[in-house]
Amino acid sequence: MKEIIVRSRAREDMLDITREIQDVIAAERWKKGAVLVFCAHTTAAVTINENADANVCRDMLHGLSRISPRLAEFLHDEGNSDAHIKSSLVGASEIIPVENGALSLGTWQGVWFCEFDGPRRRRVLVQWLGA
Amino acid sequence: MKEIIVRSRAREDMLDITREIQDVIAAERWKKGAVLVFCAHTTAAVTINENADANVCRDMLHGLSRISPRLAEFLHDEGNSDAHIKSSLVGASEIIPVENGALSLGTWQGVWFCEFDGPRRRRVLVQWLGA
Amino acid sequence: MKEIIVRSRAREDMLDITREIQDVIAAERWKKGAVLVFCAHTTAAVTINENADANVCRDMLHGLSRISPRLAEFLHDEGNSDAHIKSSLVGASEIIPVENGALSLGTWQGVWFCEFDGPRRRRVLVQWLGA
Repeated sequence: MKEIIVRSRAREDMLDITREIQDVIAAERWKKGAVLVFCAHTTAAVTINENADANVCRDMLHGLSRISPRLAEFLHDEGNSDAHIKSSLVGASEIIPVENGALSLGTWQGVWFCEFDGPRRRRVLVQWLGA
Repeated sequence: MKEIIVRSRAREDMLDITREIQDVIAAERWKKGAVLVFCAHTTAAVTINENADANVCRDMLHGLSRISPRLAEFLHDEGNSDAHIKSSLVGASEIIPVENGALSLGTWQGVWFCEFDGPRRRRVLVQWLGA
Repeated sequence: MKEIIVRSRAREDMLDITREIQDVIAAERWKKGAVLVFCAHTTAAVTINENADANVCRDMLHGLSRISPRLAEFLHDEGNSDAHIKSSLVGASEIIPVENGALSLGTWQGVWFCEFDGPRRRRVLVQWLGA
């Protein structure tokens, strides 16, 4: 198992980690199977989405905050229950097929770390699953 | 890795791909492990849900459009940010346990391709993960 | 493949199944790879979230019911379309890296069974995926 360190820059942020994952696959010489990308935190997530127009990320973070806003009636005293909900909606992990040592992503797909309660230093685990 | 081609029929659509996945498992003689079903697009998704009453899909597509509507303030100029958000909420993939060459689904579970910006021709990757 | 039986106590409920999964890993002597935790039902889900403050679960169930309420216009005659939608939003499964025979979870992470249409007896499948 390998680890990628991510440093988010705002309370809500998205960071493209596709290159970092591909670098791990190359360094480890993984060839055919799938790679598990796992976020080790409860107020962040990992997702796959467009990596061409940066406005997609802006719209996603805006849309997610509209879907899961900070509600006055939340009981958790850290005040970040909106982020815990976003984490479970978007999900802690993604699994991506790997062929010939490369991520089998669609044309517009990238792998994104999603921060919902930053800025913070975060850990993403990368685990190989052979075919 | 195998590929299933899906043709959605409307902007929002759900297509049952359980049979197609089971056919791949049978043709490849995969026996025991899990199968990764991966959507190679950023405005579509794969999910597991009821395959008995077609009204469940209608309600799901209606509910999802209420959760992630097309907002005037979105910046992405393709006008489909609602679909990108739905894609990350529902998720790009599912992994289903396989035993004795058959999907280990619950009684009411089917595997669904979810279209959020169709109609389009779409690719779904099917990757074997041995036990 | 192993199975965990869960008994939910209310229509909406969250049950920490981290210990049960770790017990399966220990009993089966699985060492290095990942474990697939799969919910065999269409009105329930599996997620990873905080296992320290019980208020996080209360806020999550409250927030999810606000995101996917029971709508009068739903067509499915069982009256539980809100639960089907929550199931697809949160997701049927999680995959967790395993190293040295232990779940590689972050400090605050636990694995939760999420009930959205209980109380019921439910099945969670646990499938090993070797590295």
